Amino acid sequence: MPAAALTDFSRLCIHTITTKPWSLDEAVPRYAAAGVKGITVWRQALEGRDVTASGRLIRDHGLSIVSLCRGGFFPALGAADRAKAIDENRRCIDEAAALGAPMIVLVCGAVPGQSLVESRRQITAGIAAVLPHAQAAGVKLAIEPLHPMYANDRSAVNTMSQARAMCRELASPYVGIAADVYHLWWDDTLETELKASGREGTLFAFHICDWRTPTTDFLNDRGLMGEGCIPIRQIRGWAEEAGFRGFNEIEIFSNRLWSGDQAQFLENIKAAYLNYS
Amino acid sequence: MPAAALTDFSRLCIHTITTKPWSLDEAVPRYAAAGVKGITVWRQALEGRDVTASGRLIRDHGLSIVSLCRGGFFPALGAADRAKAIDENRRCIDEAAALGAPMIVLVCGAVPGQSLVESRRQITAGIAAVLPHAQAAGVKLAIEPLHPMYANDRSAVNTMSQARAMCRELASPYVGIAADVYHLWWDDTLETELKASGREGTLFAFHICDWRTPTTDFLNDRGLMGEGCIPIRQIRGWAEEAGFRGFNEIEIFSNRLWSGDQAQFLENIKAAYLNYS
Repeated sequence: MPAAALTDFSRLCIHTITTKPWSLDEAVPRYAAAGVKGITVWRQALEGRDVTASGRLIRDHGLSIVSLCRGGFFPALGAADRAKAIDENRRCIDEAAALGAPMIVLVCGAVPGQSLVESRRQITAGIAAVLPHAQAAGVKLAIEPLHPMYANDRSAVNTMSQARAMCRELASPYVGIAADVYHLWWDDTLETELKASGREGTLFAFHICDWRTPTTDFLNDRGLMGEGCIPIRQIRGWAEEAGFRGFNEIEIFSNRLWSGDQAQFLENIKAAYLNYS
Repeated sequence: MPAAALTDFSRLCIHTITTKPWSLDEAVPRYAAAGVKGITVWRQALEGRDVTASGRLIRDHGLSIVSLCRGGFFPALGAADRAKAIDENRRCIDEAAALGAPMIVLVCGAVPGQSLVESRRQITAGIAAVLPHAQAAGVKLAIEPLHPMYANDRSAVNTMSQARAMCRELASPYVGIAADVYHLWWDDTLETELKASGREGTLFAFHICDWRTPTTDFLNDRGLMGEGCIPIRQIRGWAEEAGFRGFNEIEIFSNRLWSGDQAQFLENIKAAYLNYS
């Protein structure tokens, strides 16, 4: 049985990239005025800004900072480049701490042509290397499995099962999983995997949007909830049965939706959140 | 350890769609003159032709007919449309028999927005409905799992594991699997699944091409072997360890490659077959 419809916005979080045309200064009061309760901040939205002051701005508007998006991209051909990626992830952790974000989402990375097994080894090693820094900063790390169509260039972690294996290996309360319905909806083990992740205490975040048919762009043609085929409410139900009580994060990359009026889009998000999530 | 390189063309098969600009009358002598030994015929290549005579033409050039491509597309919203799909598959079986093709590749289908579980039920029911006809005609049916990016509109069968489950349910020596590296390369269970399929006697066909980065089109931007990231030789090795001794079928959809000189492309296929398959 699917979960009951959502009836309020107490668990609604929006990723700044979803309303990319808005600066942080514009997005924060708009989200707050709309009754949105959470925000996940993309690092691009912080460029050229004082990070600590940005965190204050967000909290002053009554928004919870859910995550900083995104760290990761650990694999590289040479050890020097892998060390650079680790440094960059330490900076990302510092930025999350300064912002007041309790968590970083990791898009783990891949090297085109490198075996996925080797890339996953490098990802695990990279997370292990930054973990003490994350723990000292009180910042959790959420591995986000990406759709298999991104396996060669964006993430060699493509299933909940692989992310859970990494969590088991790293065995830290600071390492968990960001489950995004866009990447995972097709997987016939998803219910089982979400529930296992819940039992293991690693289900850190839940991202939603929709899958459009036809999809015309590999990156930036995601749909608003209800525009596609993903059984979002059913999957949210599984996450809740798994014990998840965090925010439902709206993360939509869409050239189409970015090109329209963002205030109207925000209203549409709210309606779609209640009707289709 | 990856398999040894291929050193001859005795197991090389080409799908007519790979050289789409060529009619069957042009492709058959060209393949034969190039030393290609097998051909998989797409139904489009037979349009407006006498099918029996086409089969004779192919055999007269010394080519083995490996498959007819493609049946399937069983799921539909209403029972009438599902019955139509079943009729169409019976016609496809008749066409395979007339052509002298021992096997049909099934792109199983999906209904946008319909649950994948329901679509898979309809696929299994559809195959069961045509199976007596296939068996009477001596034509095998090969379920082709498609990449998860096609789950909503082209096939609700997206993994070897799902295809194997269907084979177990249908339990007929006439039902097996066409494993295509393009769809399956990212799956960390692929080696295990291929070997299980081999043990179960369901590994009917092996399709190869490459995955390009970036991929610019969801359908028609496949690569020639060596142009992408797929460890084709390693996967072929797994198939051979699984007991597979059939043709290595070159199935490439590519606007880019179709727009070039097809005779040169055929030479490039032969070179890539030896160097990267």
